[in-house]
Parts: sequence; C-alpha cells; structure tokens
Amino acid sequence: MADPSTSPPLTRASVFEARELIKGLVHHTPTLTNATLDRLASTPALVTEGDGDAGRKPAKPRMRLYFKCENLQRVGAFKIRGAFHALERLKREPGWEEGGGRERGVVTHSSGNHAQALALAARTHGIPAHIVMPSISAAPKIAATKGYGAKVVFSGSTSVEREAVVEKVIEETGARLVPPYDHPDIVLGQGTLGLELLEDSHDIIAAATGAEPSHAKNHGARPAESSFRAPITTPKFPESKKANAGLDAILAPCGGGGMLSGVALACEGTGVRVFGCEPWFEGADDAKRGYEAGKRVEAVSTLTVADGLRTPLGKVPWGIIYERRLVAGFYSVSEDEIIAALKLIYERFKMVVEPSSAVPLAVALFNEDFRALVEREGGEDGWDIGIVISGGNVNLEALGKLFAPKEA
Amino acid sequence: MADPSTSPPLTRASVFEARELIKGLVHHTPTLTNATLDRLASTPALVTEGDGDAGRKPAKPRMRLYFKCENLQRVGAFKIRGAFHALERLKREPGWEEGGGRERGVVTHSSGNHAQALALAARTHGIPAHIVMPSISAAPKIAATKGYGAKVVFSGSTSVEREAVVEKVIEETGARLVPPYDHPDIVLGQGTLGLELLEDSHDIIAAATGAEPSHAKNHGARPAESSFRAPITTPKFPESKKANAGLDAILAPCGGGGMLSGVALACEGTGVRVFGCEPWFEGADDAKRGYEAGKRVEAVSTLTVADGLRTPLGKVPWGIIYERRLVAGFYSVSEDEIIAALKLIYERFKMVVEPSSAVPLAVALFNEDFRALVEREGGEDGWDIGIVISGGNVNLEALGKLFAPKEA
Repeated sequence: MADPSTSPPLTRASVFEARELIKGLVHHTPTLTNATLDRLASTPALVTEGDGDAGRKPAKPRMRLYFKCENLQRVGAFKIRGAFHALERLKREPGWEEGGGRERGVVTHSSGNHAQALALAARTHGIPAHIVMPSISAAPKIAATKGYGAKVVFSGSTSVEREAVVEKVIEETGARLVPPYDHPDIVLGQGTLGLELLEDSHDIIAAATGAEPSHAKNHGARPAESSFRAPITTPKFPESKKANAGLDAILAPCGGGGMLSGVALACEGTGVRVFGCEPWFEGADDAKRGYEAGKRVEAVSTLTVADGLRTPLGKVPWGIIYERRLVAGFYSVSEDEIIAALKLIYERFKMVVEPSSAVPLAVALFNEDFRALVEREGGEDGWDIGIVISGGNVNLEALGKLFAPKEA
Repeated sequence: MADPSTSPPLTRASVFEARELIKGLVHHTPTLTNATLDRLASTPALVTEGDGDAGRKPAKPRMRLYFKCENLQRVGAFKIRGAFHALERLKREPGWEEGGGRERGVVTHSSGNHAQALALAARTHGIPAHIVMPSISAAPKIAATKGYGAKVVFSGSTSVEREAVVEKVIEETGARLVPPYDHPDIVLGQGTLGLELLEDSHDIIAAATGAEPSHAKNHGARPAESSFRAPITTPKFPESKKANAGLDAILAPCGGGGMLSGVALACEGTGVRVFGCEPWFEGADDAKRGYEAGKRVEAVSTLTVADGLRTPLGKVPWGIIYERRLVAGFYSVSEDEIIAALKLIYERFKMVVEPSSAVPLAVALFNEDFRALVEREGGEDGWDIGIVISGGNVNLEALGKLFAPKEA
C-alpha cells in the first residue's frame, strides 16, 4: 500500500479523484427503491418486543428509502472499490514500479470480502497477492480467494497470529501490506459509492418532481454508467422536493469504518447527514460507544450475526468520523432486528445480501431513536434516506438456519 | 374473466395494446446482465455427470445473457401482468359493470403466484376476490393472499375438489372465473414482459455498439419507465451487432404456458426465436413431449423442485406454441441442473428467485442440445439470449435445505 503520507487529502474532491482512478474497474451499481419497504418504514409500532423500546410510544416517521446495491458489485461487495484504488495509488507511488514493487506484490490478512477484492484487483494488474487467512476459514472462501489467483497463506485465528504471518510474508517476499480499512486510500475508494448514491437518488427524485438532475447542479458531465440506476418504483414526493431533490440522510453499516468514513467524506458540505449503523450484541457497537464517550474503542470481541461488523473502528476512519464530526451519530440494533430486516430484504426486495447489509434497514425500521429523529425533523414531508447494502456474500445453507423459526 | 370471444386477436399488436392497458399498474422490471454467468455459459464442459450427455463432446457456444427480472415485479412474479390485464378487459366487457359484475367479484383457484396477483389486482379496482386454496397450503401463502384483501376459501387438494369449490363460489356469489393461464387475456398480459425484454436488451446492445436504440426502429416514443433498465456490466460485442442489435433468442420457463405463449406473441415477426424450458423429472416436460409428438399432453403428475412448472400446457397456449409454431422448440433439464443454476443465481447474480426461474439458465448452461445449436448457428459471434426470471417467491427455510450438500 502506498505510504499514507503520499495519499491525497481526505476531502470530497479526493473522492471524486478516486472515482476517476477506478472508473471502468468497478461497477456503477444501481440505486433501487421499494414501495413495500417504504411503507413498512413509514408505519409506526414495528417495535420489537423485549428491547429497550418496549412501552414507548412509537414514532411516526415518513421515509423514502434508496438502496445502494453493492451486493451487485464485483466480488459481491463494496470492498473492491478500496482495493482497486489502493493499487492505483500504489502504482503512482514514486519508485514503487522501478524498485521492483510490482514483482514483490501485495499482502493482506482477511477471511472476508477484502481478501477476494484484493485478489481480483491484484490479478487485474498482474501483481502477485498473498492473502493470510485463518486455517479454520470456510472452504468456499478459501476457494474463492484462490479462484481469483491469490496465494493463500494460513495462520492461526487470533489477530496476533495473523499479523505474525503477515510480517513473515513481508520479510520473505517484500510484498506491500494493503490493510482492509485503516488507510486513506481505502477510505477514499470506498467513498466513491457515496457519490453514486447521492447522484442517483437525486436523479430519481428529480425525475419525479421536475427538479434539476444532479449533474446540472454538481459537477458537469455525468459518467456514462449513470444510466445503470434503476428505480423499480417511484415514490410520491412532497412539494418541497422540487427545490431540494437531494437525500436528507444516509445510513451505512460500520465495522472498521473505512466505508462509513468514505461516504462521510463524499457527503461533506452537501448537507446530507451520514449515520453509522451497528449491532449492539456483545459490544459490537464499539464505534457508537467510542463516539459518545469521545474515545475510540480499540478492541471488540463479538459474535454478532452481522459478521462483517465484528471489527473495531480504525484510526483513520475515527479521525473523519469523530474528530472532524463528519458522521452525525450512530444507531444500534439487536440481533432479532437484524434478522427481521434481513428477511424482509430477501422476501420483499428479492436481493441476496449478507447479514451486515441489513443493519441500516434495521435501524430505519426498528430503532426508535432514529425514527423519532426523522419524525421530528422530517415532519409531514418525511426524509429521503440512502441505505447502503454493503455486500451479498453469504453461506446459503447457514441462511436457511438463520430464518428457521425459533424453538420455544 | 371476459368471455374469450370478446378478447383481442392473439397478435403482437394486441400485446402492445395490453401494455397500454396495464401501464402504471405493473413495474417495468429491469433487464440485467452478469459477466460471470456469461463466462460460465460460454465455457464448455459444464456437462453434469450421469445424465444423457455423459461422454458427449461438449459444445463451445458463445452466449451473452439478458435477465428479465420479474422477481422484482409486484407480488414478486410476472403473474400480476395477466391478472391486471384480465381485469381491465373484464371492465370493458359490454354489460359487466351494469349487470353488477363488479359487486359479484372474481374467483380463481391457485395456491401460488396467481392467487396473490389476482388478489392485489382486484383490490386495486375495488373488486371482491375469492381465492380457492387447498387447505394444506403453506401458512405464509394463505397469509399473503389474505394480506392483499382476498377472501380465501379452502378446498381439498385434487383439481376435481378445487374446481368443485370454485363452482360453488360462482353459484353463491356470481363471481367471474379468472383462470391462471388458459385464457387469451392472461396470455396477452404476460406477453408484455417480452416487449420490455426485447427493447431493453436491444438498448443495452445498441448503447455498446452504436446501433440505433429500439424505439427509433420499432414503435415511436418509449414509455417513461424505460429508464428502469439496468445493465450492471456491458459485455463485449462482435462487429455484426452494429447492424442488428436485437436478441437472437429468448428462453422462458413453461408451466401452463401462458407466459411462454405471450412472449412468443411479443416476438412474432421479429426474428427472435423463443424456446420453452422445462424440468424433465417425472414427466414435467409435458409441453416438450406434446410439441414433439404433435399432441398436447393433458395431465401431469410431478413433484419437480420447479414447483411453478408442475402444470400441464393449456389449450390457448398450445394453439400459439404448437399450432402456430411461434415457439421454436423445447429443452428440458434435470433436478440437479436446476439446483446448480439456482445456486449460481443466488451466489453470483445475488437475486432471490424461485426454483422455476432457474430452469432457463439451466438450459443455457447444461443442455447440450441447446448449446450445440448456439455453437452451430451463432458461431464466432455467439448469441444474445434473453432469460426470463419468472418470480422470486420462495420459502427461505426450504431453500437452505435445497442447497445443503447431498449425503453420500
């Protein structure tokens, strides 16, 4: 990975630059709407029994949701954006190519989407990739990573054991480390999905209200892929949206925070508020706790069903999210709420997504603090809310068990 | 249902008229492409062991696939098109409204997608709907049908028992029967998805090759919803597609044949060849057998995993498919091939679809007769093939079992 000191400044303009660098290498994924989910989100009293909201008077928010479908992204997750951007920046690092950097390759430790993303991005550029995975990783994940041409190196399961193996690979091969989220180049790459979501949801609203399309207002000619957006249904809009066709807020899942902080950069100065969404099971809401206490929580140990969100917030994301206050706040949900939202996505939205991707919808449907905010600030007009669907890589067998009715 | 003698003629022009009648009532669903599935379909030797193709030299076809995503349609299946069209035609039947037809309502027997489709269409028009369902139907299906405001009437499971209950409902209420597929108005309604698939795939190809978009060539102004199409990836096209940006063929699943025959009407005179796709398990390939023998097979008893395709071909579809030869032929696949294709749709295309919807992709991937045809006729340029994804209503728990590895 390029030395962070050579990274572009962490600004909205740098996210636009990142988009130029990875154009043609990643998909411009569709932004979709769904009338049933809008109706459910705008119905009071979906409150799950037994959590802290029991007995509380349900809020009556109005919401129109815009789903950014990164499950339809290459390798099935947004991670490919950061991986390609990291390599593009690395290629531009003075001396890297000449010093034999390409031959020495890249290395990371991941058993998830970042592993496959880096493997594919590296193969595309003819760069060797070493992926350190715990030897207990699921066979299909190992196979998929090898399928993208990476060299898989096994390690123990703890982060200490994994990092030791990474060090060894670096020593032996001279490969450059590409971390999964805690680096400016990764943050800027992931942020590109935020730009697409802002523009495409704006255009859906503009098409229905007669407001100006986003490119007229924001930044010249649109990329050709912008025709990929696909509103399945067009919601009814209040009169006020003619003047302001933009989103009011974006809900994004937060694990290590690379994507959330990138989206926050993409929204800087636009007036669109970005919120982080987490499970709270076994302390998985580390970002929320850290944000509220003013101190980053550095370790988490949780087995939340949202397995992409088990990681603590990284330092670079923390600077954007908390120190610069580019994220407006955090909301957390229970395991049951995540599974209920996940089931709705499968049954009503017909999209294959991983559990982590259901966390923002769970916040919109079930978190009474967030719902009360939308009622209070959105009023009769309601809010237009972007929902980041982060990925779609699931074990289909395990999914059946997740949806099975609980035994009494 | 309107008297068939008052139905429009079974022509392509009537499918266009049907589209006008149901405009705004049904979604213009997206047509999507997928680079991974294109690559798999264009790779030889995916032949499943143990079926009739074993030992045969695998064909080397080139295919570019265009998925018509009716799983994203209202009620989760194409059936809503026929149901709305049937009601629009009924409303226009001389004397129906004046004779109290609206108050007497409509009736059908179905435990599947047609039940929910008719329930929603009837509720939209304020017409009472009676749905006869076997009392052993799955609870979620009964709940969903009631959820759309229909009156559910229970019956035994055999077709004789179900029809007896329908007769009784008609006697008591004067409701009009809306059959699931064997009626010209249903056929014309389902055919509208064929028009969208033809136009949207044409436009995807035209955008990439510089050929003329479909509206310039075919039929004046495009409907506003046409912007809903969403090619995720744009395949590389041969030079020849500049002159002819159309599809070469469409593969559609065939149960009762209402949709297949409607799509065949939509393609009449366009040069696009339409093929029916069936499971062959326990004789589910009744349309294929009838087509090849020149005599419609009137009864089928199969428990194929593609549960939407367990019905025998209806008389009206037979007239279009066989007597008028608007369907060019049939291909059938095994249960294992259907499940393999289904799994690929979930894992690589990230779409929730029902098993019946995987049958056309299974034909493209695994049926050596079809693949040899594409190699022979498509040659180096290959074929552009529309694939109808018919619906997405599945039992998520059952799905986990379907994907579980087989015990040795």
